Amino acid sequence: MNKHALFHEAKSQYSYQYNEQKLHILFRTKHQDAVKVSLSYGDPFDWKYENKKAHWNSNYVEMTKRYETEMFDYYFIEVEPKDYRCKYAFLIETEDAVYFYGSKRLEKLKSVPTNDFSEGSFYDLSNYFNYPYLNKEDLPNTPTWVKDTVWYQIFMDRFHKSGGQSQLPWGKLPVNNHEFYGGNIQGVIDKLPYLKDLGITGIYFTPIFESRSAHKYDTINYFKIDPQFGTNEAFGELVKKAHQMGIKVVLDAVLNHCGWGHPFFQDVVKHGRNSVYADCFFLEQDPIINFELDESGLPKYKNDLRPNFRTFAYTPHMPKWNTANPIARKHLLDSIKYWIEVYDIDGWRLDVSNEVAHEFLREVRKVAKEAKKDTFIFGENWDSSIPWLRGDQMDAVMNYDLSIPMWQYFENKISISEFKNEIINYTAMTPKNVMENMFNQLDTHDTVRMLRRLNDNDLRLKIAYLFMFASAGAPNIYYGSEVGLTGDHDPDNRRCFDWNESNWNKSLYEFVKKLIHLRSLYPQFKSYDYHFIDSESISFIKYTDSKPLLFLINDSHKVLTHKIDEKYFGVYKDLLSGEDITLNHDFVLKPYDIKILI
Amino acid sequence: MNKHALFHEAKSQYSYQYNEQKLHILFRTKHQDAVKVSLSYGDPFDWKYENKKAHWNSNYVEMTKRYETEMFDYYFIEVEPKDYRCKYAFLIETEDAVYFYGSKRLEKLKSVPTNDFSEGSFYDLSNYFNYPYLNKEDLPNTPTWVKDTVWYQIFMDRFHKSGGQSQLPWGKLPVNNHEFYGGNIQGVIDKLPYLKDLGITGIYFTPIFESRSAHKYDTINYFKIDPQFGTNEAFGELVKKAHQMGIKVVLDAVLNHCGWGHPFFQDVVKHGRNSVYADCFFLEQDPIINFELDESGLPKYKNDLRPNFRTFAYTPHMPKWNTANPIARKHLLDSIKYWIEVYDIDGWRLDVSNEVAHEFLREVRKVAKEAKKDTFIFGENWDSSIPWLRGDQMDAVMNYDLSIPMWQYFENKISISEFKNEIINYTAMTPKNVMENMFNQLDTHDTVRMLRRLNDNDLRLKIAYLFMFASAGAPNIYYGSEVGLTGDHDPDNRRCFDWNESNWNKSLYEFVKKLIHLRSLYPQFKSYDYHFIDSESISFIKYTDSKPLLFLINDSHKVLTHKIDEKYFGVYKDLLSGEDITLNHDFVLKPYDIKILI
Repeated sequence: MNKHALFHEAKSQYSYQYNEQKLHILFRTKHQDAVKVSLSYGDPFDWKYENKKAHWNSNYVEMTKRYETEMFDYYFIEVEPKDYRCKYAFLIETEDAVYFYGSKRLEKLKSVPTNDFSEGSFYDLSNYFNYPYLNKEDLPNTPTWVKDTVWYQIFMDRFHKSGGQSQLPWGKLPVNNHEFYGGNIQGVIDKLPYLKDLGITGIYFTPIFESRSAHKYDTINYFKIDPQFGTNEAFGELVKKAHQMGIKVVLDAVLNHCGWGHPFFQDVVKHGRNSVYADCFFLEQDPIINFELDESGLPKYKNDLRPNFRTFAYTPHMPKWNTANPIARKHLLDSIKYWIEVYDIDGWRLDVSNEVAHEFLREVRKVAKEAKKDTFIFGENWDSSIPWLRGDQMDAVMNYDLSIPMWQYFENKISISEFKNEIINYTAMTPKNVMENMFNQLDTHDTVRMLRRLNDNDLRLKIAYLFMFASAGAPNIYYGSEVGLTGDHDPDNRRCFDWNESNWNKSLYEFVKKLIHLRSLYPQFKSYDYHFIDSESISFIKYTDSKPLLFLINDSHKVLTHKIDEKYFGVYKDLLSGEDITLNHDFVLKPYDIKILI
Repeated sequence: MNKHALFHEAKSQYSYQYNEQKLHILFRTKHQDAVKVSLSYGDPFDWKYENKKAHWNSNYVEMTKRYETEMFDYYFIEVEPKDYRCKYAFLIETEDAVYFYGSKRLEKLKSVPTNDFSEGSFYDLSNYFNYPYLNKEDLPNTPTWVKDTVWYQIFMDRFHKSGGQSQLPWGKLPVNNHEFYGGNIQGVIDKLPYLKDLGITGIYFTPIFESRSAHKYDTINYFKIDPQFGTNEAFGELVKKAHQMGIKVVLDAVLNHCGWGHPFFQDVVKHGRNSVYADCFFLEQDPIINFELDESGLPKYKNDLRPNFRTFAYTPHMPKWNTANPIARKHLLDSIKYWIEVYDIDGWRLDVSNEVAHEFLREVRKVAKEAKKDTFIFGENWDSSIPWLRGDQMDAVMNYDLSIPMWQYFENKISISEFKNEIINYTAMTPKNVMENMFNQLDTHDTVRMLRRLNDNDLRLKIAYLFMFASAGAPNIYYGSEVGLTGDHDPDNRRCFDWNESNWNKSLYEFVKKLIHLRSLYPQFKSYDYHFIDSESISFIKYTDSKPLLFLINDSHKVLTHKIDEKYFGVYKDLLSGEDITLNHDFVLKPYDIKILI
């Protein structure tokens, strides 16, 4: 056995509270190294004394090998500690040996214990792992509506224009971040029926508060809708109408930094370190403004500039907030509260959340949930994000742990087996009660459109959508991607939505709409685990209460002859075509064909 | 190379913020598997464009093999990301291969990169680990006085009696938890000069609020000193006098549960689920009181009782608080604030802190630090406690990660090499800015007296004290242990302090006093790492700015001939005896002899 591969850590992704009663415990071994892994567990205070000998009232149960990657196997068990306390350790059986794995030491045992637990560290609870108490307060407690939501991400300037001032022709190419096409709130209101019809139940708006750029990540006024888009009242109207249609509304909170034009920072530009707002930012060196300004008073773009105050990236347009400063803190927290209390929004997406202090994120959560209990808080974290997702900060993140393997696989940068390894690893290492609320995406305003990533192959895009929709977590559609809107890196990924239906990819649109519908009907779409069934494809099965849904996929331009395991032989219905399908040894899939069989 | 042994996790004990500028990064390999491990790191936004090619302004530096256990090597580096952001990955060189270890994948490279970083995932930051931002707010921020403190733990009823009502002869044996010997606040005040003279700079009192038992963990009134000990005013006097002598005072906060007699719970006993306090507790089943009471209205002891409300362990005397309830919450938080604001205490030790909700611990921290910035919060956690020590909850814990290996070694349950493995593992896996504030202990009111653990061998006890005092973290002396007070498990470990000096172990007392003095003079005592230098003993070296202090130890009843490495040859001064000592090849240590050489 490879002893160095063994891994467990208490109170981590390997051991977390799933709900009020249940604890999820995982244990890692080298792939195919163990024959059996068991858990010894019990309440640390639950002892019985018989004939002057202390006997621990513990349980001894086999774990399930739930996840296998090329390198590792992950054994899983869900336990329900009767008095909310749990001490536990692992027993590993290999072909020729038995080991006790505790929090302090690995010990080789002479034999598999049956009734006698006197060998090794059994009952020596100092070598046991501890999950001291299942406290309800420490659960993620994400609003229940999140996991059933289908998100639609809107970049306001480019979605739909109704009236408005812009003279720029709608759809003009190339796109750049300094031009305004005139998309607006009324434009969104007009298209709510479109979204409703598509099956959307939540809108995430990139920032819409007053600022200079088209992307609006350089906020000037956190309490005011940018006049280009409309008024606060118009936005209130939008939320009300969306709610009437069963659509939630989430805004973008840019708490990491503000815009150059924000009055607090402009006061610093004017008064330097004497400004009352000086400590709202991080003024590192003098002169604070170590660059030239253009005629309009904005920083002039210069290569290799490193501003003398802290910023987002190195852009002087975006001074970083010092969220430890009480003035900055109150200003930002008030804005979090304001849009919930006054305009009844349903959540916040936190921009650059990974660079914001954890301490401040906890306050944001508290203020938001106090304003409305059911508020959803998710953030822009590009990496695995357990440290932000322990129940005290954010409910979810933009799920790049799922997106990145998909991109790399669909761009042919990694093989089918590498893709599966990364997906399974993500599934194994993400607490289930976090995973189910993740914000899943193929593309966003920050990334190349998925269609372009696939060299505009819309057949593969359908497969990508299928994979996302069949994943736990709430899928997000980046405006227009559902009708075939394409585009390269920022700013080209922010093209105008072409409302001329004759230019739409109708087949794609209908497919996405169908997926939304099927996802609402079949809970298997939302279940946690993918059971990949074929080495030549990414085909997989998903279960709920062991009822399978088979996702057969040919992600290539060649005919695929799918080897089918005997246990899946039988007659199925294809949820996409409605046809009856008989599965036996070899099942032939046409290029880019997809079946969802029940 | 054993690929399965490789380990790193961002934002964990493997990667944490050490101070405002510095990041500590560790990487694990199998012991003696790698020849060299390097770190590639830089700011994710710091790119240069040359000839239309993006070049990442990253650093590429060798890590130090800092810790070695039987199984693993831990490579370490301290980096200072110039703009507080850090993406990083590892390069592992073995005898015959080179690997790139990133957040997503391990890759074998053709060769060691020199200037060309085009192979593997170099510059593909999606396969880099991320420490997104070093925010000052997220640092542990433990009061600076803690790490220089020498603690003294007092069990009030048994320390010293001055006046008072108890008729029980002081020192009567056997001890039990229902008898009161009459130790009191005035008794402590009288003995402050003794503590001052010993070198003590902080007292930790086990609970002293009103309650029925002698140990007082069954609180009845969180705002009142138990009349057996004195008044609130007397306690205020004690704090004032202690402060005048440079001694801090820490109290025990029992927030997990209260006593049976607490008025909130008594109201529940009376009115059941109709009590306004019903939700302050966890009333699981009816009848809520599923046991008999004795004449005095206390629960009758019964074997195998499982109360119908949640309790500490299974004792009906200690109903568990529901800290999510606003009444309970306010009551407890008010008490935290009260003793700081009104009586100026310096910290709280949180009883059974591992079973209290993390969410509530964050509130306790906030309230305590708001009341006085320099308040120290530490808890009773018996396991490795990183999830509680991330800067948002407690500053430290009672350091059983250090105590348990010491106990097991000194009880001959583990070998010298197992002991070193566990100690080195603890040192490697504990963030340094947490370790230095730990509450270190050989014994407490919850454990067998260390002297008894050593079969009353006071020579070995000196060695145990030496090891504790030469460890990072603040050492604690359990009242009386310094003069040879012994005792078995609770309640025998709570015997009365015998103030008759002729009964003291003077040699032990002088030794402990000397250690306290030396620790205050030589910062090497407080440095993080032990450098064990000899396989036959636990002798070690500690450094500060590479200035060594040699701790030569013979922990056996036989003469030890210490093999000395050539690099340590020379003439030293022994800080214990003041003698000059010459070290060469073989250095002879008498049984249980100790030298501290400079």
